[in-house]
Amino acid sequence: MERLLADTMMNTPEKAAAKHPLLASLADATPLRRMSRDELACLAAETRDVLCNLLATRTAHFASNLGVVELCIALHCEFDFRTDRLIWDTGHQIYPHKLVTGRYHQFPAIRTQGGLMGYPNPHESVYDLFMTGHAGASVSTAVGLRSGDVLNGNEKRRTVAVIGDGAFPCGMVFEAMNNAGELEEDMTIVLNDNKMSICPRVGAVATYLDRLRSNPYYTGLKTEVIRLLDRVPMFGDPTERLLAQMKEGVKAGLLGGMLFEELGIRYVGPIDGHDVALMRKYLAMAREMKGPVLLHVVTEKGHGYKPAAEDPVFFHTPPAFQEETGKPIATASSGCPPFTLHARNAISRAMAEDERVTIITAAMCQGNKLEPVREQFPDRFFDVGICESHAVAFAAGQCKTGLRPIVDIYSTFLQRSYDQIFQEVALQDLPVVFMIDRAGLTGPDGPTHHGVYDLGYLRLFPNMVVMAPGYAAEVDMMLCKGLTHEHPVAIRYPKASAIELESLGLNHSPAPIEIGKSERIREGRDGTIVACGAMLDQALATAELLSSATEHSLNVGVVNARFVKPIDHAMVRETMSEGKFVITLEEHTKVGGFGSAFLESAVQQRLDTRLIHLLGLSDTFIDHGDRHELLAQQGLGAEQIAQTCREASSLVNAF
Amino acid sequence: MERLLADTMMNTPEKAAAKHPLLASLADATPLRRMSRDELACLAAETRDVLCNLLATRTAHFASNLGVVELCIALHCEFDFRTDRLIWDTGHQIYPHKLVTGRYHQFPAIRTQGGLMGYPNPHESVYDLFMTGHAGASVSTAVGLRSGDVLNGNEKRRTVAVIGDGAFPCGMVFEAMNNAGELEEDMTIVLNDNKMSICPRVGAVATYLDRLRSNPYYTGLKTEVIRLLDRVPMFGDPTERLLAQMKEGVKAGLLGGMLFEELGIRYVGPIDGHDVALMRKYLAMAREMKGPVLLHVVTEKGHGYKPAAEDPVFFHTPPAFQEETGKPIATASSGCPPFTLHARNAISRAMAEDERVTIITAAMCQGNKLEPVREQFPDRFFDVGICESHAVAFAAGQCKTGLRPIVDIYSTFLQRSYDQIFQEVALQDLPVVFMIDRAGLTGPDGPTHHGVYDLGYLRLFPNMVVMAPGYAAEVDMMLCKGLTHEHPVAIRYPKASAIELESLGLNHSPAPIEIGKSERIREGRDGTIVACGAMLDQALATAELLSSATEHSLNVGVVNARFVKPIDHAMVRETMSEGKFVITLEEHTKVGGFGSAFLESAVQQRLDTRLIHLLGLSDTFIDHGDRHELLAQQGLGAEQIAQTCREASSLVNAF
Repeated sequence: MERLLADTMMNTPEKAAAKHPLLASLADATPLRRMSRDELACLAAETRDVLCNLLATRTAHFASNLGVVELCIALHCEFDFRTDRLIWDTGHQIYPHKLVTGRYHQFPAIRTQGGLMGYPNPHESVYDLFMTGHAGASVSTAVGLRSGDVLNGNEKRRTVAVIGDGAFPCGMVFEAMNNAGELEEDMTIVLNDNKMSICPRVGAVATYLDRLRSNPYYTGLKTEVIRLLDRVPMFGDPTERLLAQMKEGVKAGLLGGMLFEELGIRYVGPIDGHDVALMRKYLAMAREMKGPVLLHVVTEKGHGYKPAAEDPVFFHTPPAFQEETGKPIATASSGCPPFTLHARNAISRAMAEDERVTIITAAMCQGNKLEPVREQFPDRFFDVGICESHAVAFAAGQCKTGLRPIVDIYSTFLQRSYDQIFQEVALQDLPVVFMIDRAGLTGPDGPTHHGVYDLGYLRLFPNMVVMAPGYAAEVDMMLCKGLTHEHPVAIRYPKASAIELESLGLNHSPAPIEIGKSERIREGRDGTIVACGAMLDQALATAELLSSATEHSLNVGVVNARFVKPIDHAMVRETMSEGKFVITLEEHTKVGGFGSAFLESAVQQRLDTRLIHLLGLSDTFIDHGDRHELLAQQGLGAEQIAQTCREASSLVNAF
Repeated sequence: MERLLADTMMNTPEKAAAKHPLLASLADATPLRRMSRDELACLAAETRDVLCNLLATRTAHFASNLGVVELCIALHCEFDFRTDRLIWDTGHQIYPHKLVTGRYHQFPAIRTQGGLMGYPNPHESVYDLFMTGHAGASVSTAVGLRSGDVLNGNEKRRTVAVIGDGAFPCGMVFEAMNNAGELEEDMTIVLNDNKMSICPRVGAVATYLDRLRSNPYYTGLKTEVIRLLDRVPMFGDPTERLLAQMKEGVKAGLLGGMLFEELGIRYVGPIDGHDVALMRKYLAMAREMKGPVLLHVVTEKGHGYKPAAEDPVFFHTPPAFQEETGKPIATASSGCPPFTLHARNAISRAMAEDERVTIITAAMCQGNKLEPVREQFPDRFFDVGICESHAVAFAAGQCKTGLRPIVDIYSTFLQRSYDQIFQEVALQDLPVVFMIDRAGLTGPDGPTHHGVYDLGYLRLFPNMVVMAPGYAAEVDMMLCKGLTHEHPVAIRYPKASAIELESLGLNHSPAPIEIGKSERIREGRDGTIVACGAMLDQALATAELLSSATEHSLNVGVVNARFVKPIDHAMVRETMSEGKFVITLEEHTKVGGFGSAFLESAVQQRLDTRLIHLLGLSDTFIDHGDRHELLAQQGLGAEQIAQTCREASSLVNAF
């Protein structure tokens, strides 16, 4: 396919419409059903062009979207998803769908504050049913949708779930197939097999899909096989039953897909996911079949843009890049490396020093920057795929043998292991160390990805130690401590730069990590900001602002809490001892997090809490946008915290 | 098998030893390896006799234990689980294992306070590796154990996971098989197929296992089939590849088990799970095979005790029954029906009134007493098996079609749906109603089953409403309210009797349920107990105790909180308005629960919290035992709460 060339971002509706006339004309997806083959090919080309134009300007999900252009078009040709049901699993491959369902003109602002979300969003369009972002739920919700439509007498509404091969091994997909196979609901599961998770995929299901793709059907030998099959005579004196079983066996071997067929799900495919006409034929067939059907579609991640097709891992969510070459455009660096990098280095150091240390991740090797660790310690590196529940129980098993596993998972995805953290780790009191990345606002990904509940859900469990590093050097110190602690430990940090105290001009030597001990970073006679984790950055900036203010200046101390559980009770008492105000500060929902732990400690010590002010994220789902802008919007920018300090200070004499 | 007869519980070590000489002599399981066939048969008979003797005296897991007697013996004959690794999934079938591993003499006290736990417990024995109770983790932990043993150079330690067909469809089993198939670790997964979950099992996997059991291998036709297969000529001019594929196909149809084989797991079976010699042969074979092996063992739940084999649902955890007849022994009733029954009735009423209401459970039809609902509304009743993640996402799908699903799951098992509650329900703001049973101390089941984190983990999510009924009539009122509320709602209640206010002599007409409004039940001038949910019972008893005390009498008010989220801010203010003490009372960990929500509200309103006392469960894993005894042990008996009130009262003038 010839990709349309473009040199600049479309910047006016007129220019855009001239360049992408088909997309620009679509108010919804219904015209696709009447388009000719050639028009659909043009639509695909326009879509791919828009993707390349836009994605060359900022970080976004890229290769996966290029891969589903034709699939998306074929789906909208064969179904009417204003009433039919379509769920895009995981959801980062939603861009072509947004473009062909009337969102072309809003598209340039995708993933920016106030712009389109980078995932399906029911608030944007009737074509988006569920806000997805976490993998593996599509088949379950589709079974529920179909069940509801049937109960409501709306059998004519069709149901389609599109799920990638990376998400497919998620346990709940198996649970959903187990249910769908029994309910015999008419629905189509499109398995979008691009041979990739974000990283190259892993696991036995992946191997299985590889085998299916080498099936003679797919390689064009279908009729030959059937002719051959007809020539196999069955003789001897078998019972009817044995003969039937034999035929079933032959069919299984030839057709493939027994993993699905055994569960009562009809397997069709694999077919070429870049051939719109072929997919339309098979989708139409699947649509009319009784019971659940799995249509195996093979796509190429990055299809149509050579650099992406050649390196789909890099192009999963690449930084802004030069469209012609695919080379990243250098952007001004913030100067400080992110927490993720410090975590990776700490993990690498720990594994070099202690052979008992292993690292387990759930398809987040790239996101967590673990590739060098995988290279260096292949025997102790375990990527289990998008299977967070298994990852944690697997770690617990390793722990029992004397190993010291580190589980490195994003905060929001760790929710998928909640019951295993409870039963397999906390209840057994096993020293698994959780490195929890993306703990806080994740920026452009939005509410499905913000990791803002972990302090609340982890501190409920007995035996758990919950820490959060405030500055760069602490990451390694906390991991060190965690690996010598004989109980479960969680260390959480956001997708953000880690400050270095020296570079702030603070002559501070970090105190050694002691379980349940905080660290005072700055003295202050008017009040104290107790910062949890990376909010130390804002706390120090606030203190600086307040001390240097010409009006209403305040001398505010800063404590680095370090521990959410066990909280530093002495610190709680001391910060409140002299009738000064205390501000607790966390990048976490205000409900049930560090601030609540602080209150619990204060009340237990019979302290007057009227001078405590809890600052954290509001009890709402927070949209996507730049992390710093979002923090400011939440009242957590230094200016706003300073304002809270002033208000708190004015209350000191009121009580 | 001839079951030994017994008329009374063994009550002295001497009597016991006389009756069960083999079991009484075992300090560990090593002698089993040297026992003759006859001795092993005697051991099985003794084991079954102990089970029947004991279980006729109290509620315990029964039928599942009778079913695995021979399997347990065969396992201990072929492995040495002091060093080899054995995980019993779910764990309620652990009794024979406890008996043959040296715990016979402690066995009579099982599931009573201070006695043996009804699940595997590493604190009891080196033979118990993981405290299990929640289903589906065994294969994951086994993969982890094996991986650790290999890394540590302990390849000779064998790994076995025993998992029932009920637990098998749990998503994480699939995740674990996906990983095991790739890692090619040597391990044996014993699939204990008794054709039952707690209720008759459901789902496509169940149908599949039924098909496997009808395999000619199992019915004795193995050699005949192989002879036949050898006589099938392959001719024509197929390519090598097609021929190979064909043979694979034939093998699949004949051998069965392709669901596992496709994932790289060798399938062996099905074999008779009550034939010790046969199982030993196959276990020995599996033990020596390379890579993961699934051994399909068919057992009968309740085997060897006719009433249990005939009605395994009732005999899963039956009340105390007459051993000879299997008829329940009438016990003195507490007079008040349990919350579970009120919930069932409320669900039934709601479904009769509104056709949009559906009910979804995860193999807890019996536990939640839903059988009559299943009979009455078969089209709107969905048991998805032990697949809690799917259950919640499925409910979300139904919700989108306009239905009003109720998800009825135990508190502790709802942890397995945590990410789906987040993404599929709360984030989409869908009006799913969660009826959360067993929310609190579950008594004899112990720490794997106590549901004491739900308030904490649910109230973190925006849009959630979290309620807890304090008395019987509120269950229906809350469900009514929940079903008209257009957002997610959770209603939690314990495994306990629901009080009726009238029967307490309180002339109280329940106030209608308003979102975020509590209800005052009793006035009091000295202080207030704010009770969350079923702790209202203890709060009223405490108030009564205090008012009728001859010394140190206090006049204490009682508020029924009703809502944990949104909490009644006006109530918080009012209870604290006059310098009186406030006790918050909840059957939930003291960390992050109702008390913390109360504190958060108080601080937001700038109220002095020094007179607030949070009562709840300690931040430890609480053992099994009688619920009332456990509550007392936790300082939550009426006497102890009264004492806390007196102390709180004495502090009133201190601040």
